[in-house]
Amino acid sequence: MNKFIISGYHAVESILANHPELIVNLFISRSEDKRGDRIRSLAKTSQINSDLIDSNKIDRLLGHSKHQGFAAEITKPGFLSEKDVSPRLKKLTTSRVLILDSIQDPRNLGACLRSALAFEFDAVIINKYGSSPINEHVFKTSVGAILNLDIFYVTNLSRSINSLKDIGYWVLGLDGNAEGSISSEKFSSKTAVVLGSEGSGIRKLVKENCDHLIKIPISNKVESLNISVAAGIIMYELKNQHIN
Amino acid sequence: MNKFIISGYHAVESILANHPELIVNLFISRSEDKRGDRIRSLAKTSQINSDLIDSNKIDRLLGHSKHQGFAAEITKPGFLSEKDVSPRLKKLTTSRVLILDSIQDPRNLGACLRSALAFEFDAVIINKYGSSPINEHVFKTSVGAILNLDIFYVTNLSRSINSLKDIGYWVLGLDGNAEGSISSEKFSSKTAVVLGSEGSGIRKLVKENCDHLIKIPISNKVESLNISVAAGIIMYELKNQHIN
Repeated sequence: MNKFIISGYHAVESILANHPELIVNLFISRSEDKRGDRIRSLAKTSQINSDLIDSNKIDRLLGHSKHQGFAAEITKPGFLSEKDVSPRLKKLTTSRVLILDSIQDPRNLGACLRSALAFEFDAVIINKYGSSPINEHVFKTSVGAILNLDIFYVTNLSRSINSLKDIGYWVLGLDGNAEGSISSEKFSSKTAVVLGSEGSGIRKLVKENCDHLIKIPISNKVESLNISVAAGIIMYELKNQHIN
Repeated sequence: MNKFIISGYHAVESILANHPELIVNLFISRSEDKRGDRIRSLAKTSQINSDLIDSNKIDRLLGHSKHQGFAAEITKPGFLSEKDVSPRLKKLTTSRVLILDSIQDPRNLGACLRSALAFEFDAVIINKYGSSPINEHVFKTSVGAILNLDIFYVTNLSRSINSLKDIGYWVLGLDGNAEGSISSEKFSSKTAVVLGSEGSGIRKLVKENCDHLIKIPISNKVESLNISVAAGIIMYELKNQHIN
């Protein structure tokens, strides 16, 4: 699927303001207020048709009515591939990369992408098969972050990890059973962190390709943290050390 | 609603092993394997009826079929109230308290509770009106943490904040517009942190009752972090400083 539909004022406003080139169709059912005016004025600037349609037509299009009168069909942005890893990243001297191994919950995936943009990560590498597709749920929970990140979609994570090592990255895997702890870790200036899915963690072969495994120490009353929370904590800690 | 239904092997196993007294009814549709054996043996120990029923009866009960053959109707655990705040917490010398102001998304609320248990918080204070009720969605995303936490359900958060101040707590509010930053904050040995909802933040009056406001510094390309991610980061940082 190369297109999907987003809805709600904030999502539609953001994409019209920042990436109008991705919009295939715009659906508006209101105009008599500030929000309607703002959307129609942005559409006019980008020469996008903004004729009004019936609200229940948008309901049927989306299968729900929580769209506030605004929806847009957009083309999925182009993602980068495995061969782009080295050319794109080799010249950086301080750099943070997030590697997500088989995250299947779209809300968790979206929240990880939102945090990656918040903590100024240079790239997110995702395995194409076995991960949630980038769809409207991911878009929504990422609050549009997918449009402002360099996302690499790859078929073989281990190969991408080795490409990163070749250009000087230190690759850390987050693993609940690791001996090393995140809070005593001194991060390298070029660091990639790998996170696996909540159920099964990082896959064996991918884990073997990490330079070092660390954990976030937690109470033994809890088996693990939510994956997007764990990702947020390690990205926060890494960003923090890179600044100081 | 004082009862709700949970489902899935892990959820049912955990509640049978740790809080069988909360179980009103147990529904099992399988027995011919290790998991079925484990559940039935736990039920026997606690003298809970474990007769097999038809799988599609569980489907109808839940409105979905993702139960793996196990479900349980449970009584909501008893929560603490405003008057318990001081007696329960005043003798602690090092203590961490989480205060959640009007978190309406049950998945975010559940993830916050899961992190609070992971980072060994002594209490979570929630405003009764304006927050998501503790339901099966919260239970599920908390991965059962609600059963192992001291949760205070209060009508007036400002009053509870003042009770905490009276017994020596320093009360921090997380606010995207604050000047202070979490990474340069030296936390007091008795600290409470307040988080508001994603849309509107901490309510004005509650905010005015905080001793100090801090933020998690993020890129200006992102308006805010997901609330459960922000909560996880501040709880991680606080736990970390209390250890070191």
